[in-house]
Amino acid sequence: MTETLPLHDLTALVRPQLERLNRELIQDLAPGHKEMLPLVEHVGGFRGKQLRPVLTFLSGVAVRGASHGGGLGDDVVTVAKVVELLHTATLVHDDVLDSASVRRRIPTVNTMAGVEVAVLLGDYIYAKAFHMAVQLPDPTAARWLAETVRVICQGEITQVLHRFDFAWTEPRYFTVIAEKTASLYAAACRLGAHYSIAGGAASGTAEARLRALEEYGLELGIAFQIVDDCLDLDGDERVVGKSLGTDLSKGKITLPMLYLMQQGPDAAERLRAVLGKSEGEALRRLRSEFPLEHAVAYAMEEAGRRIKKAQASLSLLPAGPARDALHQLAGYVLTRRL
Amino acid sequence: MTETLPLHDLTALVRPQLERLNRELIQDLAPGHKEMLPLVEHVGGFRGKQLRPVLTFLSGVAVRGASHGGGLGDDVVTVAKVVELLHTATLVHDDVLDSASVRRRIPTVNTMAGVEVAVLLGDYIYAKAFHMAVQLPDPTAARWLAETVRVICQGEITQVLHRFDFAWTEPRYFTVIAEKTASLYAAACRLGAHYSIAGGAASGTAEARLRALEEYGLELGIAFQIVDDCLDLDGDERVVGKSLGTDLSKGKITLPMLYLMQQGPDAAERLRAVLGKSEGEALRRLRSEFPLEHAVAYAMEEAGRRIKKAQASLSLLPAGPARDALHQLAGYVLTRRL
Repeated sequence: MTETLPLHDLTALVRPQLERLNRELIQDLAPGHKEMLPLVEHVGGFRGKQLRPVLTFLSGVAVRGASHGGGLGDDVVTVAKVVELLHTATLVHDDVLDSASVRRRIPTVNTMAGVEVAVLLGDYIYAKAFHMAVQLPDPTAARWLAETVRVICQGEITQVLHRFDFAWTEPRYFTVIAEKTASLYAAACRLGAHYSIAGGAASGTAEARLRALEEYGLELGIAFQIVDDCLDLDGDERVVGKSLGTDLSKGKITLPMLYLMQQGPDAAERLRAVLGKSEGEALRRLRSEFPLEHAVAYAMEEAGRRIKKAQASLSLLPAGPARDALHQLAGYVLTRRL
Repeated sequence: MTETLPLHDLTALVRPQLERLNRELIQDLAPGHKEMLPLVEHVGGFRGKQLRPVLTFLSGVAVRGASHGGGLGDDVVTVAKVVELLHTATLVHDDVLDSASVRRRIPTVNTMAGVEVAVLLGDYIYAKAFHMAVQLPDPTAARWLAETVRVICQGEITQVLHRFDFAWTEPRYFTVIAEKTASLYAAACRLGAHYSIAGGAASGTAEARLRALEEYGLELGIAFQIVDDCLDLDGDERVVGKSLGTDLSKGKITLPMLYLMQQGPDAAERLRAVLGKSEGEALRRLRSEFPLEHAVAYAMEEAGRRIKKAQASLSLLPAGPARDALHQLAGYVLTRRL
C-alpha cells in the first residue's frame, strides 16, 4: 500500500466540482426572507472535510474510468449538493440534541439563535435538500435519499433509546452506525456513480460497479464512525476541535466500551459507575481504571478491517486515478485525527 | 347561507377514504426497529380533526363534480397520507419548540421520550412522508410539498425572529401565517384535485379548478390561523385542550395584538409590559387592561372575509355535494372552538 497523501491532494481530481458546489450552496439556500440570510451563511461556516461530496464526485469519475471530474454533468453536482445539505441538516439537529455550543470553532445555531431556530433551520435545510433532489428528472436520488434519511433517524433514535443499556451488543452497535452514519456515505458513492453513467446503469457491469461503490461507502462510513468513537476517548481536543468524553457522559456505548464491558465479570458494573459522569471526570476515570489503550486498539482493528473491505470492493472498478484516490481516501479515514 | 353542519357530517362523503388513511398510516410508519413502534403508535394518538386529508379528498371529489369519494384512486390517498404525515412532523417539532407537555390530552413526544427523540422522530416522519411522495409516478406532489415544507419552516423561523418586535405589521403577519399554516392547506386542496384528474390537468378548465382549490385552501388556512390566534386569547381551555396565553407569553404578535398596538400612542408600550409574562398573568392583564373583545372581533372579521373569499373561489367548480361540503367546511373553520 502506498503512503497516504494529505486529504487536499486526494481531492485534487474533483477540485473544480467542489468549488462549484461551495459557490452554489449558499445561493441555493438563499431564502425568500432576507432575515434568514445570516443564519444560512452561518451554517455555511460549518463546512468541514466535505468527504461526502468528494466521494460523490470521485465515484462519478471512477465508475467511468475517467481521469478527472471534468466530464461530470450537472445532475452529479446536484446529488453532491443534496448529500451535503442533508449532512448539514443532521449536524444542526445533532448540535441541538447534544446542547453543543461550538462546531468547527464557530457557535452552533442553537447557541447563536436558540433551540427553536435551530430545530426549524434543520427542517428547512432538509426540505431544501429534498426540493433539489425532486427537481432531478431521474427520481432515483430522491427515492434513495428519502429512505436514507429515514434510516439515519431510525439509527439515531435507536441509539438514544439504548443509552446506558449494558445489554447492548456489537451486532446492534454495527447496525446502528451503519444506519446513522454509513448509509449516507453509501448513498453518496452509489448516486454519484449512478448519475455519472445516466442511462448506462441498465447493464450488468454498471450495476455491479454501483453496488461495489455502495459497499465501499458503507464500509468506509462504518470505519469513519468507529474512528469517531475512538477519537472521543483518545483524541486531542485541540485537533478534534470539540470536547471529548461526550459519549461517556451521554451513556452512548461505543465499540471501545463494548470491549471493556467484556473484560471480567465486574467490568460492566464498574463502567456503570463511569458513564453519565461529566465529560472530564468520566474520561479521567476511564483512563485510570480501565485498559483504554487496548479498547481503542481493538476498535481500530475493526475499523482497519472495514477499510480493507472498502478498498477491496474497488477492484470491480476500472483502474485509474479516481479509483486510486478512493483507495487512498479510505486510508485517510483510518489515520485522521480530526 | 345554510346552517353549518357538524364536522362529522361534512366529512361523510369521504369517510371510507379517511378510514383507509388511518388504517394505513400506522403500518406505513412501522419502522425497521421494533423499539420505535411505541413512539409511532403514540404519535398516532395525536390524530385530530384531520382537516387537511379531508380537504385533499373533498377537493379530489369536487374537481370532477363526482358525488362521493368512491372513485378516488390510490395516488390521492397517498397524497392525503403525505400531507397528514408532514403536518404530524410539524406538530412533533412544534411541541419541542413550545416545551409543550400535552397534545390532545396525551403526553407530547418530548415529555414521553425526551427532546432528543422528539427532534429525531419529527425528522423521521418528514423523511417517511417524502419517501412516500417520491414513490408517486407523477413528481408533482413531491416537488410541491418539498417546497411547501421549506416555506412552512421559513414562516416559522421568521415568526421566531420577530417575537417581541413592536415594529411587526399586519402585512408581515399575513405573509407569515400564509407560509407557516395556509401553504399546507393550499397544497392539500390543489394536490388532491391534481391527482384526482390525472392526465386531465392539461386543459385550461382543469388548471383553473386547481387554482381555485389552491386559493380556497390558502384563504381557509389563513382564516384557520387567525381563529387559532384568537382562541389562544379568548378560548375555553377545557374545549381547546391546551393552555391559553402561550402566544403572549412567547411574545408572538398576532392579529388581535396588532389591533391593540394601534389603540393610542402608549398602547405598544403598555403591551410590552404584558408580553413575556407567564401565560396566566399575561392573559389576566390583557383582559383587564385592554379592549380584548374588540381586538378579537377585529381579527374574526378578517377571518370572516378570508372565509368568504375561500367560498367564492369554489364557484369555478362543478356544483355538487363535495363543493357544498367544502363550502360548509369553510364555515366550520370560522365557528370552531377547538
